Order: sequence, then C-alpha cells, then structure tokens
Amino acid sequence: MKPNPINGDWVLDGFLLNNHNAKIVNSMHTFAIYTAMENRICKLFDIQYPIIQGGMIWCSGWRLASAVSNAGGLGLIGSGSMYPDVLREHIQKCKKATDKPFGVNLPLFYPDLEDHLQVIEQEGVKIVFTSAGNPALTTGRLKAAGVKVVQVISNTKFAKKAQEAGVDAIVAEGFEAGGHNGREETTTLCLIELIQKAVQVPVIAAGGIATGKSMFAAFALGAEGVQIGSRFAISEESSAHIDFKKAVVAAQEGDTRLSLKKLMPVRLLNNAFAAKVLEAEARGAEKTELEELLGRARAKKGIFEGDLQEGELEIGQVSALFSAIQPAATIINEIVTDYRRAVDEFKSF
Amino acid sequence: MKPNPINGDWVLDGFLLNNHNAKIVNSMHTFAIYTAMENRICKLFDIQYPIIQGGMIWCSGWRLASAVSNAGGLGLIGSGSMYPDVLREHIQKCKKATDKPFGVNLPLFYPDLEDHLQVIEQEGVKIVFTSAGNPALTTGRLKAAGVKVVQVISNTKFAKKAQEAGVDAIVAEGFEAGGHNGREETTTLCLIELIQKAVQVPVIAAGGIATGKSMFAAFALGAEGVQIGSRFAISEESSAHIDFKKAVVAAQEGDTRLSLKKLMPVRLLNNAFAAKVLEAEARGAEKTELEELLGRARAKKGIFEGDLQEGELEIGQVSALFSAIQPAATIINEIVTDYRRAVDEFKSF
Repeated sequence: MKPNPINGDWVLDGFLLNNHNAKIVNSMHTFAIYTAMENRICKLFDIQYPIIQGGMIWCSGWRLASAVSNAGGLGLIGSGSMYPDVLREHIQKCKKATDKPFGVNLPLFYPDLEDHLQVIEQEGVKIVFTSAGNPALTTGRLKAAGVKVVQVISNTKFAKKAQEAGVDAIVAEGFEAGGHNGREETTTLCLIELIQKAVQVPVIAAGGIATGKSMFAAFALGAEGVQIGSRFAISEESSAHIDFKKAVVAAQEGDTRLSLKKLMPVRLLNNAFAAKVLEAEARGAEKTELEELLGRARAKKGIFEGDLQEGELEIGQVSALFSAIQPAATIINEIVTDYRRAVDEFKSF
Repeated sequence: MKPNPINGDWVLDGFLLNNHNAKIVNSMHTFAIYTAMENRICKLFDIQYPIIQGGMIWCSGWRLASAVSNAGGLGLIGSGSMYPDVLREHIQKCKKATDKPFGVNLPLFYPDLEDHLQVIEQEGVKIVFTSAGNPALTTGRLKAAGVKVVQVISNTKFAKKAQEAGVDAIVAEGFEAGGHNGREETTTLCLIELIQKAVQVPVIAAGGIATGKSMFAAFALGAEGVQIGSRFAISEESSAHIDFKKAVVAAQEGDTRLSLKKLMPVRLLNNAFAAKVLEAEARGAEKTELEELLGRARAKKGIFEGDLQEGELEIGQVSALFSAIQPAATIINEIVTDYRRAVDEFKSF
C-alpha cells in the first residue's frame, strides 16, 4: 500500500481505498514496510532498506536483482557465472526492469575480469561488490568512474586492506555462509565485532542471515547492513533450478558442510557428490585428487541444471530455517516486518 | 560500589563514601550495574544478570564460580575435571564464599556420574547444568530433589529431548564455542533461532559470546540468557595456568580450530599438539591413531599445568577479541555496561 503521489489517496494493489479502510490497512503495514531506515548503507546506495541480495552464481541474474531493488533492497547481478556478453545483457535487462539502484558482484580472480570491468564501465553500473581477490587493483579505477565499491572479506587483515584500497563499505562474511568461504572459519557472530573494531567504513554482515531476527542480531553487533544470499537463492526470481530450490527448503541442521578445504573452502549441501568429497577428505586425499573429483562446471550442473546427485550445491547453513520458495518482495517484506517486531518486542525488556 | 547492608552507606572497594561522592559514583554506575534485568533466566536462578559462567574443566572451581555469583551472574563449578571428593570440597568452599546462587556443570558421560550425583544431592546444590549425554536419565531425579536443571545441546533434536525430559532451560551452544562441540557445526547465529522455534523453555546462548554486543545479539535472536566460557576461563579467578591465559589473550583470528572430528569434535588453540592432530587428520589418520595421539590428561597438562606445546588447549573462537586477564566482577560489569550502551545506541537508529 502506498500513497498516490498525485492526490495522496491510498492505493493498495491498484485499488483506491476509502479513508476508513485506508487507515486500517495503513496502520497494519505502513510502519513495517514503508518507513525507510536511515543509516550509512541506505545513504551510500540510496536504498530504502539496508538489505543486500548477495551476488550468486547461477541464481542472481537481472530478474532477481531487479525484483530485490524494486522491493527496496539492493539487488546484485552475480557475474561469476556469466561471460562478458551475458553480463552485458543482464545489466541492460536490469536497467529496463527497475529504476532503482542495483549492482554487480565481481569475483576478482576470474580470467574474464578485464572484460567484465569494461562491460561494467560501458554500461554505467554505479555499484560493484568485489570478492575473492585483491581490491587494490580495481577499486581506484572503479571509484574514478564514479562507482561505489564494496569488498567482501572474511578476516580483519583483508578488511584493513580493503579500507586502504578505498572501498566504500565492507561485507564481512562468516563461516556459515554458502559457497566460497574464509580459511579462518570465523563465524559471523565473532567476525562482525572484530571487523567493526578494525575499520571505520560501514560493515555489512553476511553468513547465517535470512530473517528479521538475524538482521537485528547483526545490527546489535554493529553492522549497518546485511547481505543475504541463501534465502534469495531459492526465491521465485532466482534462476536456480526448481529442484535445487526444493532441496534447499528440505535441508535440515548439519545438511551443509564446509568442504574442499585443501582447494578453496566451499559450503555445500549434502548429496552424492559432497559425500564423495567427504569420503576422499576423510582418507586424506591430496589436492590433485580433489581437483579431479571436482572437475569443471559442477556448480552449474547442480544449481542451474538441477542435478541433485552430481552437482555442486552451494548454499548456507541458514537453509535449515527455510520452509518455502517465495517472491523476493515477500522475502524483503517479511524480513523488515519481523525485524521491526523483534526490535519492538525487545524494547519491552 | 554497593550499599552497606546494615546502614545503607555506600561502600566502594571497602572505603566508606560521603553522600556527595557516593551520589556521583552511584550515578555513573547504578543504572548499568545495579539495575537487574527481569527475565525468565534471572527469575529461574534468582540472579541479577542473565549471564552464566560456563562450567569448564581445569578453570572453574569454587573461586571462579563464587566470584561470578557474587558479581550478580551465575557461577558454575565444572565437575568434569574433579573426582567426587574434590567436587565436594569445591561445593563446600563455594557455599562459604558466596551467599548467592551457584551451580554445578555435570558431563553425563563421565564414569563417576553416580558419585557426582550423590555429592550434589548430599551438598544440597540447587542448580545443575548437564551436558554431553542423555538428560532423560538424570533430570527427573534431580528435579525431585528440588534442583533446577539445564541441559547443554547443539541441535534441535536434543533440545526437544531435553525439554521432554523436563529441564528448566536449555543452553544452545554453537560451533564457535571452545572445548567439545556438536557434529552439525551449526553456528550460534543459526542455532539460537532454530532452537528458540523448537522449544518453549528459555534458551541460553553459548559460543562466540563474550561482550555486551554479543549478548545483545544473542537476545536479539530470542535468547534469554548467555553462557560465557572463554572470557571467564582467562579471568583472574580461573584456576587455569597463567601461561594458558596469556596464550589465549594473544590468540588471533584463525588460531582455534575444531579438531578430532573422528573422535569427539573439540575446539583447540593452535600449538604443537594441535598441529600434529591437523597433520594426522589431513593425511586421513584413523580413529585409533588419533586416540593414541590424544592419549590421556592432555587438557590438564595444557590448561592447568601450562604446557603450551603438548597440552590440549580448549578455548573458543571469540578469544581473538581478548586483550586482558581481568577479575570476574570486572568482566561482568564490562559486559553489562557495554550491553546497556549498545542497547541505548541502538534505540537512536
């Protein structure tokens, strides 16, 4: 529900409401859904809620990113699974689908990095989240082009390096996060306080956050925004395969595991492939054997093509909490409503 | 500072204050330190702050437990490293050192369990935290003797079992905690929300909590108390060796690791022994080799005797945050003061 910008009448799903009904509906929803939070992350990106949808391979194309941005969060296109021309197409479609700010996530160790950077510059993308690499090489160039730059890190050392490189904010991602992950295994609860002490730029918490309560907890620790991956990975607008989404909804405690630590640590949902990895690791398999076992394109096979047995199913520990596949706007509304309720209930204590 | 119970004069560190000074000191500290929080955990144990000092082998004897209880928290004697007659001695000394409630932590898989239970009953202990075993076998007996019973768990399944067994509260302990740990590797951030949804009894959060901010985060998630181990393990009143305490203060991110997963997972501080374990695990060492490597009494050797190379140094991930060895009362005051400040600062947002 929102006020008609011309005459101030209340409109709900296109229906004009009389004053009495408007008041009732308004009192139910306005505070929770339409009161913008004012903090550094909202100001930095010019967004309504400090909720960022993590850029995720095979999940977050233009459809998801624009849906999140249209709902008041910040949507990110995950370029890690895109060739440069595919990335260009997604950016162009995203611009058509929303007039709100959106961004691109850019893994810095990818071979196509220079091509991706050129696409981002040519298309005038104004927000870039870099990850998995050294931000000193790209931050200055992006900032010079007027881009807001955020770096994803999982320890204090790289948080400080990112700040030195001139980033506008930092995503601090804990052990419970899905996909690639830090070697220190520091959990979000421990990490946010460490990072927030070490840097002055705003900290966005990631890993284990999917609900209003966990957003409240992240803010209690000093974060000024949250980056949510897993819950959006199984949203309706995610380009992940429906069978992958259903498997994530069905996941319980202990069903994800940080694996492949001898290569690059990655949190995976249990399946036949993950079991083979665990078995190999338990008997001390060397790096080369694990590389062979992993092979290529397993994440695409699992997440995008829905091969639940042989695919590499990257997802976070928090999936044990999920019970439904929902539209991105519903997810954001639920998080904000639950957050407000948790804060209100807390005050009575 | 506290009021003299006889005449109401204010006393600070044994010095009687005149009315003017008392008012100033009082206005600085009263709200933060002497305002009791009212919640189910405070009521259950009749304590001022919902802060529980975890029962820890080789750290928490009568000296630490009574110091914590005298400061308004709940001190626990860790019986896991005590023979029954030693436990009796600690309980008796604790009763002399405090008139506040205190409790005993009782690992249920220990061979001396029946003897420990008899000591607890004979000495009239009124609070018992059970861990590492099935609470169905002991809860009824303890409750019949008027004991408040709390079970430590790390997953929903055992939280439900504990509630069925009739416990008064549950400690939900996450992956980041020191010492023995759950197989699911669920972090505190993910675990508290899961457990709080699954049971009606109050939930006490543990693992990664050591500060006012992390206590605030735990409460934001729905916990009604916190159990803090590591920070009290290195308090002045802890019976741990001074060299162990110094090593924990020096610990940085990534310096603890969940190890010995083929036996019973335990979080250890890196040292020569932990390095041997990691090396053996990386090459796929079997359970029997790990058992031999571990041997016996290594925790005593490291924590109590201060052998930093060959000892088993059980401590939590949160030790990366520590910078000092402090008295237990100072720790509690700092946590409560920082908690109040964090809550107050949060309100402005």
